[in-house]
Amino acid sequence: MGDAPLPNPVIVLAFFREIPPAFREAIQNKFPDANLEALVLQRGEPIPTDVSRKATVIVTFTNLPTPEDAAHIKVIHFLSAGLDHLIHHPVLTQTSIPVTTSSGIHGPPIAEWTIMNWLVASKKYARSYENQKTHTWGSHDAYMDGLHDQVGKKVGILGYGSIGRQIGRVCAAMGMTVHAYTASPRTTPASRRDPGYIVPGTGDKDGTVPVSWHHGTDRASLHAFLALGLDHVVVCLPLTPQTTHMLGADEFALLSARRRTPHIAPYLTNISRGKVIDQAALLASLASGELRGAALDVTDPEPLPGDHPLWEAPNVQISPHVSGLGEEYFPRSLDILRENLGRLERGEALINEYKRGKGY
Amino acid sequence: MGDAPLPNPVIVLAFFREIPPAFREAIQNKFPDANLEALVLQRGEPIPTDVSRKATVIVTFTNLPTPEDAAHIKVIHFLSAGLDHLIHHPVLTQTSIPVTTSSGIHGPPIAEWTIMNWLVASKKYARSYENQKTHTWGSHDAYMDGLHDQVGKKVGILGYGSIGRQIGRVCAAMGMTVHAYTASPRTTPASRRDPGYIVPGTGDKDGTVPVSWHHGTDRASLHAFLALGLDHVVVCLPLTPQTTHMLGADEFALLSARRRTPHIAPYLTNISRGKVIDQAALLASLASGELRGAALDVTDPEPLPGDHPLWEAPNVQISPHVSGLGEEYFPRSLDILRENLGRLERGEALINEYKRGKGY
Repeated sequence: MGDAPLPNPVIVLAFFREIPPAFREAIQNKFPDANLEALVLQRGEPIPTDVSRKATVIVTFTNLPTPEDAAHIKVIHFLSAGLDHLIHHPVLTQTSIPVTTSSGIHGPPIAEWTIMNWLVASKKYARSYENQKTHTWGSHDAYMDGLHDQVGKKVGILGYGSIGRQIGRVCAAMGMTVHAYTASPRTTPASRRDPGYIVPGTGDKDGTVPVSWHHGTDRASLHAFLALGLDHVVVCLPLTPQTTHMLGADEFALLSARRRTPHIAPYLTNISRGKVIDQAALLASLASGELRGAALDVTDPEPLPGDHPLWEAPNVQISPHVSGLGEEYFPRSLDILRENLGRLERGEALINEYKRGKGY
Repeated sequence: MGDAPLPNPVIVLAFFREIPPAFREAIQNKFPDANLEALVLQRGEPIPTDVSRKATVIVTFTNLPTPEDAAHIKVIHFLSAGLDHLIHHPVLTQTSIPVTTSSGIHGPPIAEWTIMNWLVASKKYARSYENQKTHTWGSHDAYMDGLHDQVGKKVGILGYGSIGRQIGRVCAAMGMTVHAYTASPRTTPASRRDPGYIVPGTGDKDGTVPVSWHHGTDRASLHAFLALGLDHVVVCLPLTPQTTHMLGADEFALLSARRRTPHIAPYLTNISRGKVIDQAALLASLASGELRGAALDVTDPEPLPGDHPLWEAPNVQISPHVSGLGEEYFPRSLDILRENLGRLERGEALINEYKRGKGY
C-alpha cells in the first residue's frame, strides 16, 4: 500500500434484510468517497461473483465471496464480534485478505443489558410493573425484605474482553469488586491492556478495574476462580471446544458452597453462547436454589422451543440473543471500518484484525 | 462532653412495625454496650414520657419526644434523609439537641433504582418480560429499531448531594456526561466535596464526576441549565417552598426544544418528592411526546389514587416511594449513628448533623 492512495473503495454491504434509506444515507456520509452497494442475502449465502469481483470492501455478518472472486478485496469487515460460524470458510483459510471484526462495539449495550437484568432481579422490578398495570400502590414492607443492592458484591467475569471490561467498569462504579478470569496469564500491565476498539468513554483500557486477575484453561484453575466467594458470575467467553459446557453441575455446586453471603445465592449471567453452559445442570441448580437466578441472553438451542422448561425456571430472565443490539450497532461497527480504511491507506496495522488459526 | 466517657447509651428505636428478631440482634451487635428499647408507634405519634425521659439516643422516622422529656437525650438520629415533615416540631425548634439524618445511605439503592428504570425503558425490557410469559422468542428486528444505549447521553442532575453523586458516578461509568445543578455556587474544589456520610466504594466525594457545574435558585438559572441539551433530568432536590413545582410546562417545553438528539426526547426521573413537579404539566408533556418518558418513585399525592391518570400516562414507570429501600437500609443508617456516638464521646463535630433553620 505504501504512499499511493487507495482508489475509492467499492463497499459491498451484504445484509439479511433491506437497509432503511436513513441508514444507507448514514453509511454514505461516513464514507463520502465510496461506491456503496447493498445486497439482501440469506444467512450464509455466497456473495454473487459479479458483485465480489468489483468489490474492494465487504461488510457482512455471514455472506462471503469465494477466494477466486476476491482478488480486489482489501478487507472483509464483519458486523459481528466473533467468527466462530465462519472460520472454516475458504476465503478465510485460503487467502490472507485482512478480516476485521466488530469486537468492542458490544461492550456498552451488553453491559447495560447485564446491569438491567441484575437490578430487575435484585430490586424485584416486576412487582412495580405488575402493580402499575392494576393501579396498585405497593406496600413499603414488601420493598424492605428480600431486596438488596449491589454495593460490596463480588463479580467474577469469565473472559475479560471488551464486554467484560465495560461490565466491570459499571460494577466498580456501583461499589462492587471485580475479579477477572482469562485464558492466558495477564501478569504485566501491558498484557492487561485492551488492544482492540473501545467505544469512547467506556471500557477498561488499562485493565485497572479488577481487584484480582486469574487465568487458566483447565478445571482446577476455573474452580479456584469460582471458589473466590462470588455473588455474580458473568460468562463473556467465546465458544470454543474448550469452553463448551465449561459451567455445569460441579461448578454451580462450588459457586454455591463458597458464596460470600449466606442468604444470597450466586447469580449467573450468560451473554456469550448457550453451549458454554450445561443447561440441564443450570435448570437443576435454579430449581434447588443453589443459584439465585440467571440472566440469559443466549440459550441452547436458539430459538428456545416454546415447551422448553427454561422458560419457567425460577428467577430466570431470558431475552432472544439481543443484548448487543440497538440503534448504535451499525454506526459503531462502521467507525471501525473507517478507522481501518485509513490504516490500510497509511500501511498501518489494523485494529480488530482476526488472527487466523486462533479460533476466535 | 470532653474526656469523660458517656454512660452506656439507652437507645430508643421508635418504628411503625415490630422489629424482626434478626434485625434487633444486628442492632445489639452494632452497639454491644447499649440498652436497646424498641417501640411500635403510629406515624407522628409522640414517644411516651416514661420512655423519653430515660433515653439518651432516639432513632426514628417520625416519632419524637416533647422538649420537656428530652433532658437526657444526646442525639436524635433520623432514619430518613430529609426532615421536611418535622422541622417545626418543638424538639427541633426549642432545643439544641443534635439531630442527625441518614443522608448518604440512599445513594446506592436510589442510583440503582434510577439506572434500572432508564435501562428498562431504553431497552424495552417489558417486551422480553412479556414474551417470556408466553414462551415467545422475539425477533431481532424488534430489538434494533428504537432501542438505544446510554453512551454519550447528557444527564442533568438537579441537586448534587449523595444521591445525585452516586447516580452521576454510575452515569460516568456508562459513558454519559454529567451536569450538576446546586442551589449555591460550587466554584472551588472545597465547595464541591461531599461533607456527609458516604457508603464506602460509592459516591463522588471530591465532586470530580460532573463535566460542568451550575447553580441558582431563580428561574433564569434553572432555565439556563435545562437548555444544556440534556437527554435526562434527574430530580434529587429537597422539597422546600422554592422547589415546589419547580418543573412545569415551561421547563418541559424548554428541555424538549433544546434536546440533544432530535429523535430522542428528554427523560425525567423523580426520586425526591412529588410536589417538586407540576404533575398536570408532566401529564401533558408525556402525552404530547415532549418528554420521552418518566421514572417516578414519588407522586402527588401518595399513595397515588387508583383512578389517577398518571398510572396510564405514556412511558411512565411508577414505584411507591421505595427507591431507597432494601435490606441494607437499617444497617447503613446505624453505621452513621455509631460513628456519631464515637464523635460525641470524643467531642468532635458530628457527621450528617441537621442545621436548624436551613429547611433541609
